[in-house]
Amino acid sequence: MAWNVYLAGEIHSDWRERIAAGAEDAGLDVTFSSPVTDHGTSDEVGVAILGEERDAFWKDHKGAGVNAIRTQTLIRQADVVVVRFGEQYKQWNAAFDAGYAAALGKPIVALHPEEHNHALKEIDRAAMATAETPEQVVDVLRYVLEGRLPA
Amino acid sequence: MAWNVYLAGEIHSDWRERIAAGAEDAGLDVTFSSPVTDHGTSDEVGVAILGEERDAFWKDHKGAGVNAIRTQTLIRQADVVVVRFGEQYKQWNAAFDAGYAAALGKPIVALHPEEHNHALKEIDRAAMATAETPEQVVDVLRYVLEGRLPA
Amino acid sequence: MAWNVYLAGEIHSDWRERIAAGAEDAGLDVTFSSPVTDHGTSDEVGVAILGEERDAFWKDHKGAGVNAIRTQTLIRQADVVVVRFGEQYKQWNAAFDAGYAAALGKPIVALHPEEHNHALKEIDRAAMATAETPEQVVDVLRYVLEGRLPA
Amino acid sequence: MAWNVYLAGEIHSDWRERIAAGAEDAGLDVTFSSPVTDHGTSDEVGVAILGEERDAFWKDHKGAGVNAIRTQTLIRQADVVVVRFGEQYKQWNAAFDAGYAAALGKPIVALHPEEHNHALKEIDRAAMATAETPEQVVDVLRYVLEGRLPA
Amino acid sequence: MAWNVYLAGEIHSDWRERIAAGAEDAGLDVTFSSPVTDHGTSDEVGVAILGEERDAFWKDHKGAGVNAIRTQTLIRQADVVVVRFGEQYKQWNAAFDAGYAAALGKPIVALHPEEHNHALKEIDRAAMATAETPEQVVDVLRYVLEGRLPA
Amino acid sequence: MAWNVYLAGEIHSDWRERIAAGAEDAGLDVTFSSPVTDHGTSDEVGVAILGEERDAFWKDHKGAGVNAIRTQTLIRQADVVVVRFGEQYKQWNAAFDAGYAAALGKPIVALHPEEHNHALKEIDRAAMATAETPEQVVDVLRYVLEGRLPA
Amino acid sequence: MAWNVYLAGEIHSDWRERIAAGAEDAGLDVTFSSPVTDHGTSDEVGVAILGEERDAFWKDHKGAGVNAIRTQTLIRQADVVVVRFGEQYKQWNAAFDAGYAAALGKPIVALHPEEHNHALKEIDRAAMATAETPEQVVDVLRYVLEGRLPA
Amino acid sequence: MAWNVYLAGEIHSDWRERIAAGAEDAGLDVTFSSPVTDHGTSDEVGVAILGEERDAFWKDHKGAGVNAIRTQTLIRQADVVVVRFGEQYKQWNAAFDAGYAAALGKPIVALHPEEHNHALKEIDRAAMATAETPEQVVDVLRYVLEGRLPA
Repeated sequence: MAWNVYLAGEIHSDWRERIAAGAEDAGLDVTFSSPVTDHGTSDEVGVAILGEERDAFWKDHKGAGVNAIRTQTLIRQADVVVVRFGEQYKQWNAAFDAGYAAALGKPIVALHPEEHNHALKEIDRAAMATAETPEQVVDVLRYVLEGRLPA
Repeated sequence: MAWNVYLAGEIHSDWRERIAAGAEDAGLDVTFSSPVTDHGTSDEVGVAILGEERDAFWKDHKGAGVNAIRTQTLIRQADVVVVRFGEQYKQWNAAFDAGYAAALGKPIVALHPEEHNHALKEIDRAAMATAETPEQVVDVLRYVLEGRLPA
Repeated sequence: MAWNVYLAGEIHSDWRERIAAGAEDAGLDVTFSSPVTDHGTSDEVGVAILGEERDAFWKDHKGAGVNAIRTQTLIRQADVVVVRFGEQYKQWNAAFDAGYAAALGKPIVALHPEEHNHALKEIDRAAMATAETPEQVVDVLRYVLEGRLPA
Repeated sequence: MAWNVYLAGEIHSDWRERIAAGAEDAGLDVTFSSPVTDHGTSDEVGVAILGEERDAFWKDHKGAGVNAIRTQTLIRQADVVVVRFGEQYKQWNAAFDAGYAAALGKPIVALHPEEHNHALKEIDRAAMATAETPEQVVDVLRYVLEGRLPA
Repeated sequence: MAWNVYLAGEIHSDWRERIAAGAEDAGLDVTFSSPVTDHGTSDEVGVAILGEERDAFWKDHKGAGVNAIRTQTLIRQADVVVVRFGEQYKQWNAAFDAGYAAALGKPIVALHPEEHNHALKEIDRAAMATAETPEQVVDVLRYVLEGRLPA
Repeated sequence: MAWNVYLAGEIHSDWRERIAAGAEDAGLDVTFSSPVTDHGTSDEVGVAILGEERDAFWKDHKGAGVNAIRTQTLIRQADVVVVRFGEQYKQWNAAFDAGYAAALGKPIVALHPEEHNHALKEIDRAAMATAETPEQVVDVLRYVLEGRLPA
Repeated sequence: MAWNVYLAGEIHSDWRERIAAGAEDAGLDVTFSSPVTDHGTSDEVGVAILGEERDAFWKDHKGAGVNAIRTQTLIRQADVVVVRFGEQYKQWNAAFDAGYAAALGKPIVALHPEEHNHALKEIDRAAMATAETPEQVVDVLRYVLEGRLPA
Repeated sequence: MAWNVYLAGEIHSDWRERIAAGAEDAGLDVTFSSPVTDHGTSDEVGVAILGEERDAFWKDHKGAGVNAIRTQTLIRQADVVVVRFGEQYKQWNAAFDAGYAAALGKPIVALHPEEHNHALKEIDRAAMATAETPEQVVDVLRYVLEGRLPA
């Protein structure tokens, strides 16, 4: 059966598209899921649906609740969780998702530039693999599903 | 894959139909389930199938057992649980279902009129979202499944 | 989706066939599973496949192991477990299955003649419903799946 | 070892004191815990500690969060959960706690006047015992811990 | 720390006393627990505390609920569960407890006369050891706790 | 539905092919999965995808991580785990997989030559069946799925 | 019994001491635990005990493994997890711990300056309370344990 | 509170004594447990207590059952599991225990000579630390409990 792979973390680069394209090229039987990656939509969803808030804290709170319905459900359904840390922003949400996945016993693939190695050592330790490029993640998935090394 | 959404609570208004219609209009890949919503049927089922009782307590007990086979199974199968509190009746069953879902780690959407806010504060706190109308619930599901805000 | 219903217990009467026939007549979306109900086959399986034993105890032990692969897997996959106690034999296996299902949180329907009520009180207490006839079990399943009372 | 018994629900009568006094008289090895039962304190705790709120909804939300740290932890630590429904108010929180305890597999003792029997049938079904007086709860605890019936 | 050993099953012979005496003689750091073993008390507890019933079924049901608070809690607290089958009665409750313990992953020691071997093969298979005498159970506990064989 | 059977252990003989062929001949509704059985590929995968290592320990570590994504996921998805021990090598990985499966409550079939009986006694004890030939494993699966003994 | 409170996150300010001092002043029955907070010790532990590494990545990996034995065990033992985010550094480890605690169902208290509100919205949503000062955390603990508001 | 550390694996060298002595010298608040390490006693226990067997397989089976009561209970109670592989024998039991501990989420410390690195790569990957000497294990425990590096 198809494996469910959840792609957590950074939303400001095209890494998800590169993994999806690579998996399609490789013909892998994988279904990808992810958080909502449109930043503005994700930030506005709480108040857009459930009513305006005067305080920024509660606006964020409402939005984070709606987003959590999606993200926590998808992580629970996932067979593998890929967590991407980009070069900018705090990205605490990505690290939270990694911890959440780890406690559920989901295998994690960490994806980040080498410069973050020291800061991400606990997450790399909890991961089964640390990659630097989306193409390496595709290679991991090809191997995991089909037992083939990259050409 | 389709998400399973369990619609718990009030059985005296058309909120389930409104959610189902809205989800169909939006083309969402959702399967809804619910308790048996015909009040008389639900009350009679124990004695109708398993034999008459002299005491009302045991009549209720028998019926509640048969209903629990349905409700607890469907809550366990659900990805999301919507809990509706209407304007009348004790509705302790709805609150029980919310607690049951919360302990299983299911994301909850609470649905109730504003006047119940104080009395339902613990359930709203356990929920990921609190809505006042069925249409807002459809909007939450559209976002959660497809990442789109209401038009 | 179809519900999985495991039919545990007595193998010397036609109760499983009566439930299956009733469910088919009612058009219920149910998949039934059961232990191997051919007594001789079930008793011989261990030594027939894995080699003869000199001691009856180990012959039974081998057979019980192979049967447990089937029964425990099917109970884990089940949405509902029906446990039948007939009029003869110790049937400790049926009671074991009931306890196993109860600890896994599976809803149980007990099925037995009234004369066993006192001896089965703990199992009836753990069950969501106690029936005396296979037809009542079909009625319970119809209600649980479709919300309809018997005609 | 001492059993932990959590006393959930109604905060407007002296039922907790009557159970505690009865257990002490009986010399039972029981430790009782409960939510914060001072209504005003419980309602104010969120804003009193974590800062004022302009909206009643968020005031309630903050308070419910702090109270949940206490109640959910104590329910998880409990061996037995007693849930009391009084004659007034919605008491949805009590029903939520019952559902929460049920999903965790905690044995529940329901305590309420007979007039609530029909409205509480699902919770009575999930409970191992339904009592009408605090003294009956003490009797249940005495039996459960020491195997003795009331004199 | 002391091991908790739950002694399930037959209540009509002195096997619990023999195990307890043997463990004390051996100086084992064990705490024993058991169901209420006074037959009459156990049968009457429901109606004695919670009110009379007209139907025997509900009298049993009430009593079984109160007893289950004790037995299921003690099984959950146990490190080891000993299940005894005597020579008389159906003893379905003992088999239920064995299944309940097995699904919780508790190690089981079965204790019964050889004549029950075939009828108890599934329970013996689920057990880690099958003994015929209480003294053998003491020997098992001595070994398990202290690594010593019987003299 | 098809059963998932994970074939753990030895990778230097054709036992997996023999089981698969036998299951196909028997028309069993089974899906098999396994670790990557090409020794060289399995050893190289870490450095081939994620970059060279100077130390053999870390080369192995990287490779073992990628392989674990596959093996632990497949064991979690399995209904039955077959663990094969051949005549050569340490095969600690096979024993690790057996322990992992046992703690998850998966039924285990051990497959090994008689000469390993003493060394594998703990794993045989944790298994539901011990076979010496792949054909016996097919026989076990046929019985477990279809209730039929070998002809 | 004493509550176990794990203090996760920032190690460059005196917030742990302030909470401990406040709890002691208040006479709370709390046991605090934390990661190793000496930065140099924490970074060096892997190679200091288990041997030098040539690559910084593996030095970090070794150290993170040893630290994880401590942190994951203490989080599992905790009744409440406080997660502190300071004003500097990435602090991904703190966010990972929050996710890990959330998936285990531990109640979380977030502690951070207001300026991080937006970046920490998902973690604040997963938390039962968000505080800005250590003294507020003491107030939360006092209330949760003793039901008293700050004077 | 004291940490429970289970010492699994090799029984033919003094590594347990060296760890215990080192921990005592360091004043660590640790309780050690282990399988029965007297080889002859461990092999004989089944038949010595529960009766002779004609077949070596069933003699081993009986003994393995009694030993499993001890080992699986102690692993479940452990906070940390140390698994030692010596230079001789198959030691499949040690690898089984490692897999069992891993699936339960227990942190593992592997202890073995460097020559086993390749054969134990999967177990080292599942471990949080790999040590070559008992003294390193003591150092890990000192750090984990007290945050101190070796002098």
